[in-house]
Amino acid sequence: MTQFINKKEDIVTDAIDGVLAASGGKLARLDGYPHIRVVVRNDWDKSKVAIVSGGGSGHEPAHAGFVGEGMLTAAVCGDVFASPSVDAVLAGIMAVTGSAGCLLVVKNYTGDRLNFGLAAERARAFGLNVEMVIVDDDVALPYLPQARGVAGTLFVHKIAGALAENGADLATVAKAAKKVIGGTHSIGMSLDTCTVPGSPKENRIPEGMAELGLGIHGEAGVEQIPFSSAKDAFAAIAAKLKVAMKAGPHVALVNNLGGASVLEMSIILKELATSDFGSNISHVVGPASMMTALDMRGFSVSLYPANSDELALLMQPTSLSAWPGVGKLANIEIKPLSDGLTAITPLPSKHDETEAFLSGCCEVLIASEDDLNALDAKTGDGDTGSTLAGASRALIDAMDRLPLADHTQLYRAIGLELTQTMGGSSGVLLAIFFAAAGDGASSGLPMREALKLGLARMQEIGGAQLGDRTMVDALAPALDALETGLADAAEAARKGADHTASILQAKAGRAAYINAQQLEGHVDPGAEAVARLFEHLAA
Amino acid sequence: MTQFINKKEDIVTDAIDGVLAASGGKLARLDGYPHIRVVVRNDWDKSKVAIVSGGGSGHEPAHAGFVGEGMLTAAVCGDVFASPSVDAVLAGIMAVTGSAGCLLVVKNYTGDRLNFGLAAERARAFGLNVEMVIVDDDVALPYLPQARGVAGTLFVHKIAGALAENGADLATVAKAAKKVIGGTHSIGMSLDTCTVPGSPKENRIPEGMAELGLGIHGEAGVEQIPFSSAKDAFAAIAAKLKVAMKAGPHVALVNNLGGASVLEMSIILKELATSDFGSNISHVVGPASMMTALDMRGFSVSLYPANSDELALLMQPTSLSAWPGVGKLANIEIKPLSDGLTAITPLPSKHDETEAFLSGCCEVLIASEDDLNALDAKTGDGDTGSTLAGASRALIDAMDRLPLADHTQLYRAIGLELTQTMGGSSGVLLAIFFAAAGDGASSGLPMREALKLGLARMQEIGGAQLGDRTMVDALAPALDALETGLADAAEAARKGADHTASILQAKAGRAAYINAQQLEGHVDPGAEAVARLFEHLAA
Repeated sequence: MTQFINKKEDIVTDAIDGVLAASGGKLARLDGYPHIRVVVRNDWDKSKVAIVSGGGSGHEPAHAGFVGEGMLTAAVCGDVFASPSVDAVLAGIMAVTGSAGCLLVVKNYTGDRLNFGLAAERARAFGLNVEMVIVDDDVALPYLPQARGVAGTLFVHKIAGALAENGADLATVAKAAKKVIGGTHSIGMSLDTCTVPGSPKENRIPEGMAELGLGIHGEAGVEQIPFSSAKDAFAAIAAKLKVAMKAGPHVALVNNLGGASVLEMSIILKELATSDFGSNISHVVGPASMMTALDMRGFSVSLYPANSDELALLMQPTSLSAWPGVGKLANIEIKPLSDGLTAITPLPSKHDETEAFLSGCCEVLIASEDDLNALDAKTGDGDTGSTLAGASRALIDAMDRLPLADHTQLYRAIGLELTQTMGGSSGVLLAIFFAAAGDGASSGLPMREALKLGLARMQEIGGAQLGDRTMVDALAPALDALETGLADAAEAARKGADHTASILQAKAGRAAYINAQQLEGHVDPGAEAVARLFEHLAA
Repeated sequence: MTQFINKKEDIVTDAIDGVLAASGGKLARLDGYPHIRVVVRNDWDKSKVAIVSGGGSGHEPAHAGFVGEGMLTAAVCGDVFASPSVDAVLAGIMAVTGSAGCLLVVKNYTGDRLNFGLAAERARAFGLNVEMVIVDDDVALPYLPQARGVAGTLFVHKIAGALAENGADLATVAKAAKKVIGGTHSIGMSLDTCTVPGSPKENRIPEGMAELGLGIHGEAGVEQIPFSSAKDAFAAIAAKLKVAMKAGPHVALVNNLGGASVLEMSIILKELATSDFGSNISHVVGPASMMTALDMRGFSVSLYPANSDELALLMQPTSLSAWPGVGKLANIEIKPLSDGLTAITPLPSKHDETEAFLSGCCEVLIASEDDLNALDAKTGDGDTGSTLAGASRALIDAMDRLPLADHTQLYRAIGLELTQTMGGSSGVLLAIFFAAAGDGASSGLPMREALKLGLARMQEIGGAQLGDRTMVDALAPALDALETGLADAAEAARKGADHTASILQAKAGRAAYINAQQLEGHVDPGAEAVARLFEHLAA
């Protein structure tokens, strides 16, 4: 998998330099590249307790992204998924530790424990006051003698960091950190493995399966479970966490493991809020990418039953953009619509022939959904078929409230239905088309002339001319040829649609953004839909 | 591609509900699901100019994530990559527009233009004062009559939003928005297409290629170019933007299109900061996911030459976590290391036999890099080979500063080298091993006994016992068997290493986190490395 990196050995130093450049001068690094990669607060005067964390890289924004006022004082960065060396940790401790001392926040992985532990020993030999806490929040493997440290570490960073910023002494900060660690529980789930730079991607998780109980280094989860929906995925997570949950309200930290979209993360949050699990959650941190595993398409949830003092520390403002803040988990408030939106609806009437005619047209578009989507995927965003089929289904559903016997009213009613149910540009353009055709019909124009008026208005607002590679290229010649009958109209529509495949510069619609080579040979999906409609009517 | 969604038709409403639940009650939605999906500020009293934006979904956190104090007043959400309906936009306008009026911020896509434009007309018919601006910041297709609106839209949201929050009137806000639009230029690049929910993923971009000049809807980029590095990728972006750049300082908005890792985005930022392009950039927004195309592994850069008033509006604080704030692009500050880190280095000395012995061992580990990584990938994080090979290379490089003729000092010197260059748990464990063996040697122990003392110390700190599935399982029997010669030691090491493949519960190291089925048949990579070393020495 290609990635936005330079040389593999420069990944961590490049990324740190990026964090520093974007920090507005608030951060600095220690000399000592490439072996010593330590990010420190640039405004630090050692007058308070320093909070030092770190570990392997690949968990961004952790840890460098959390260095700043009220969180970490220094972050010690190892290679991707590998602990930093003892010297690097020691350099970090020595750079920021004054007489108030230093708290090391370490995730429970052997390498981190060893390197931070040895560095702490060496720092103490220099006379520094260093305490170390080990975060072990993972509940994936309850039988394990030593649980892993994962995203729950952020609770420790924030609470210990805010306490230290407020001037607490080392014993107080360390005690608070240990209390948070004792009460924090996390578990993660993923739909795909991550891409470790320079290594081939392991395709371990079959389509339709999810891995539950994973760490943050791409290692396999404890179990693979069938994936059906975000709801069920969250339920599996909740089941694991419930075992460890205490009575009373909890803060939930909802962490993107790196590759889930922001859209998906909001859906996960909705599942948290609306499940019975949500009744034990008072506040939420995120959803956001906080403790990632590179680009892993997954998420984790960490819980902590914060008391009011701890909640205040979690909510204490910080300028760090990587920390998403704490929100009260709120009931969803729904505001009524304004009255003006309710349009005047025409009186429904029955007319079997018109209903059959309309339904037939709708069925053609529904049957063409996949074909039109596939055509649109070549030159646009692949939704023409779904948009038209969706509108057709809605129109079929609306049949018994349409004025089927009154053709003048029918055009407008169809336009109104499309306005209410159909998104996308074709929705409005067709609504304009029918509204204007209705205008024409009311003013006495015969059907073909009314439809041509609709076309003219649609072109006026949408801006498409003949030859611009749109549905107009089929619809305009079809309406012209309609004078000599439906067969001629169908032939003209087909000819017009097919011609779009040779138009190498689209001037309207999303296809206008792509090049000739990608357009060549592909019929415009809107024109194709028009051709199919007329071919159906002629048959 | 499996995704964290429920039913395809519920994606947008589910995601909105998630955003609302996490908003701490600051946001509400209008009644009217599923067709009307409008997120509004819950504290809005219509006393100021309303800023309404929106468009298709799939761009999260845009647009609902930017509704809040000092940015948007309402966001109107369409289906994924499809414009919202006229009714939905109208509902949004009417919900938030008072006598101060309303500014619609619309990205230049046909659908959005039509739906927002028609809705504006209908709102005006109700007597509301509505202005509309069209963002067209994309420079991918300079010959296009109408450029697309992409991530530069965020500049408009922030500046117009802050102005409106400060009480400016509609004409002032609209004029400022138009000025920002006139000066904003953006371009994007991606290494992979996005996954549209419910559609098969189009694998359009071959490995090793990048698409330059893409929109935010998964549509193809203007051109495919070979991808070699983040530096070259940024240079291609910079070349396109330079054409549109004015004299003087610019603000750069660095946007994750959704699927690039936070690590990669920091590397992109470093390239921006260190290229000559960076000399024209005074401030940076991001890197962050702001205007995404679902999970697209790409980024975009938007530039605006903000004057000091506009910069103040961009920097005006907002509580929205989706807005990453504005940082001054800073020179990277480097702080010196503390003196205490410089260890006392032993006097180098030459000894051909020892050098050959050590180099031979290192070569074995270097040659085993891929094999050991592959073994580790089965049960851990796949870096054992690289860690050991990296340390071996460093040791070969360090050969002329080692006390090769003084074996007592040599152990310690190797330990020191490993401490300085080797990360990972094996780094420290081996450093402890050699340091302790050095202790033993100085106190007069013979080689085998010194090495056994090293092993004992390593086990003490690392916690691994015989049978825990670590390198100890090969090293301990090898040192025992060394009493009767190297051949026996090699045989014992191999036997011990092979035995690890049948140990179904690891008790130390990262393999401890995974299950028996995944361990079975795979030799522990640390034990394998030990076996290969002894086999080499015996040969």
